Amino acid sequence: MESKSEQNEWSSGVWANLTAVRKQSPLVQCITNFVSMDLVANTLLSAGASPAMVHSVVEIPDFTPHIHALCVNVGTLTPDWLPSMKAAAELASKLGKPWVLDPAAVSCSGFRLKACLELIELKPSVIKGNGSEIIALSSASRGQTKGADSSHESTDAIEAAKSLALSSGAVVAVSGAVDIVTDGKQVIGVHNGTKMMQKITATGCSLAGLVAAFLAIDSSRVLQATVSAMSVFGIAGELGEAMANGPGSLRMHLIDSLYGLDETTVLKRVNITRLS
Amino acid sequence: MESKSEQNEWSSGVWANLTAVRKQSPLVQCITNFVSMDLVANTLLSAGASPAMVHSVVEIPDFTPHIHALCVNVGTLTPDWLPSMKAAAELASKLGKPWVLDPAAVSCSGFRLKACLELIELKPSVIKGNGSEIIALSSASRGQTKGADSSHESTDAIEAAKSLALSSGAVVAVSGAVDIVTDGKQVIGVHNGTKMMQKITATGCSLAGLVAAFLAIDSSRVLQATVSAMSVFGIAGELGEAMANGPGSLRMHLIDSLYGLDETTVLKRVNITRLS
Amino acid sequence: MESKSEQNEWSSGVWANLTAVRKQSPLVQCITNFVSMDLVANTLLSAGASPAMVHSVVEIPDFTPHIHALCVNVGTLTPDWLPSMKAAAELASKLGKPWVLDPAAVSCSGFRLKACLELIELKPSVIKGNGSEIIALSSASRGQTKGADSSHESTDAIEAAKSLALSSGAVVAVSGAVDIVTDGKQVIGVHNGTKMMQKITATGCSLAGLVAAFLAIDSSRVLQATVSAMSVFGIAGELGEAMANGPGSLRMHLIDSLYGLDETTVLKRVNITRLS
Repeated sequence: MESKSEQNEWSSGVWANLTAVRKQSPLVQCITNFVSMDLVANTLLSAGASPAMVHSVVEIPDFTPHIHALCVNVGTLTPDWLPSMKAAAELASKLGKPWVLDPAAVSCSGFRLKACLELIELKPSVIKGNGSEIIALSSASRGQTKGADSSHESTDAIEAAKSLALSSGAVVAVSGAVDIVTDGKQVIGVHNGTKMMQKITATGCSLAGLVAAFLAIDSSRVLQATVSAMSVFGIAGELGEAMANGPGSLRMHLIDSLYGLDETTVLKRVNITRLS
Repeated sequence: MESKSEQNEWSSGVWANLTAVRKQSPLVQCITNFVSMDLVANTLLSAGASPAMVHSVVEIPDFTPHIHALCVNVGTLTPDWLPSMKAAAELASKLGKPWVLDPAAVSCSGFRLKACLELIELKPSVIKGNGSEIIALSSASRGQTKGADSSHESTDAIEAAKSLALSSGAVVAVSGAVDIVTDGKQVIGVHNGTKMMQKITATGCSLAGLVAAFLAIDSSRVLQATVSAMSVFGIAGELGEAMANGPGSLRMHLIDSLYGLDETTVLKRVNITRLS
Repeated sequence: MESKSEQNEWSSGVWANLTAVRKQSPLVQCITNFVSMDLVANTLLSAGASPAMVHSVVEIPDFTPHIHALCVNVGTLTPDWLPSMKAAAELASKLGKPWVLDPAAVSCSGFRLKACLELIELKPSVIKGNGSEIIALSSASRGQTKGADSSHESTDAIEAAKSLALSSGAVVAVSGAVDIVTDGKQVIGVHNGTKMMQKITATGCSLAGLVAAFLAIDSSRVLQATVSAMSVFGIAGELGEAMANGPGSLRMHLIDSLYGLDETTVLKRVNITRLS
């Protein structure tokens, strides 16, 4: 069982990280899909960060050196967007800036899977997906093939996540009923969030953006920053759902709740456990 | 006048279809415009379907065989998107999967009109537009030209819809004060919905996506599935408007209402009549 | 101090302009960024205008002659979109239709700055940006370079705005704590709006679209139309914030408030002053 003091450490760490995001307002470049741009930007703004949806390959040499973190999401990938993602990821890694890869629907095509594997070569700080995505990526990283239709609970994906973390050097985050975060050795469970958030498009993408914002304020502690972002987003969802009548109002209350989160609520609601 | 038993048949059919969508959660590929992606995805999610905004031509051979229905919307068409739409439509038709064409703003350019006529050659199950769009398409299908500025009530578009249905083999749905659905012989009127829904961008696109989801669960009864989707969306709008203070809150309540629709409400509110 | 009668003149002018937009429902073509398309369209609809997100270069010769105003926003600019923006701007100017340039994040790359300078050559009626954007553009127009990171209050940008207005022939609008509008001689301050609006992505883009709608109904009085649109949007934000619990609900209430604005509220809340 989790010791009380370790729980307190997680809680105060989450609050400290959120406070730092609000104070520093890190500039987060998002090269994300068309569906999610609006919600990703609003999530980052409500958390206190500064989103920048700059995706043209011609702008990256000028712009990316100024950012504090990068988020790349392949949700509506086309071949003409991939060079931008790679250029930004490569430059971010070269300049020591943290970046997050969201391999959205990675199994939907061979093209997308190959693109994600190439992006992983560019050393993301964090890879965040759902169980199916992480299992597919992990298998492909080991040269195995995997059907596109697989659907897995996040808890089943722990071994895949650890394997992917070790082979890629990234922290791997798996969203699900319980979110899992691992660096290949430690495995942390984040028990915040609600099921209805999955009924809102782009909540996963928004979480990836938020992880990038949290990395921006402490890129030396990737695991902690990732866990913090996931807990904060989950808590905002819990508060939102208590006021919501469905996914439409949850989306609104989620943003309001993220904006208004206070210390008492965060300290009370953070629910993080060490799984191994 | 509609017989009571025919009314009951429509109502129970609508509820049965919605229940099936929720149960089967069909995978609906949407190649839609940039403005509507968010609302289309959220509409499908709140109805219980699984949206997938996959539009790259390189992904279609891998992905489209797995879908249950396709929705193509030309609202922000550019020449580089058309091959994807055609490839997906052609593959869907070849594999016997239902697909919906939304000829959004078809009259705004010769390019768009020609693109829609080419898409119609690929045998959509349903063509859904407003009165102006259906009249323009129907005229163009008969080799007639039509001004871009025409604005028509849906009831005026019945003859155009019937003609287009017969020439294309598609069921044609015309949104308006009364929605019209025809297979060229039968003409059904759907009297659900509210005027304020037109003050929200992408409600028409979202309806097209919803029609695709309903086709996915019973592609052998295209007329009934289309009518059901239009009635369900209209009812959600009616419930939403009763709670709304304007188009902003209507958009939210529409999604919540679609998510929460129960049998009693559906059976009471379905308002479908046979017009001929 | 502002005379009472001049205040009344502004107020009644704002209301007259809003009434005209609602009555005439001008067709506003928006070539805007991916993030903002949804909110821009919903803002225009709730104000009574007709948005059209038509951006393909092949459609402009057919479509742009039918519009009443154009809005160009470079927020997610890529090289393939620039020719469309230029073609639409050039045609609008040639046909005497007003158009607005929103140089969103102009300083983020040399490519974007150059693109904006080229667009300014095509004679926008209004250039609307924040303080940093206007200062960067104004400096670049004078052949000076400027760091990308500058952050300025709108009141500091008055001289830059006047200079840009004189060199470009456009009315220049600077959003900020106090919005500034100038034709190079007159300088008007719009004191409506709230700080939380900046926590919603695309409110600036939406304001640019609204300015285009107001220009459409009286393109001979560019300064007045611009000031009116900014005041109306600001008032909708004030009313929205009074009901909001954060940026999520503000976004909804902003749209509802814009839709429902009545004469009494407009006349009472318009807060416009002549600064020089």
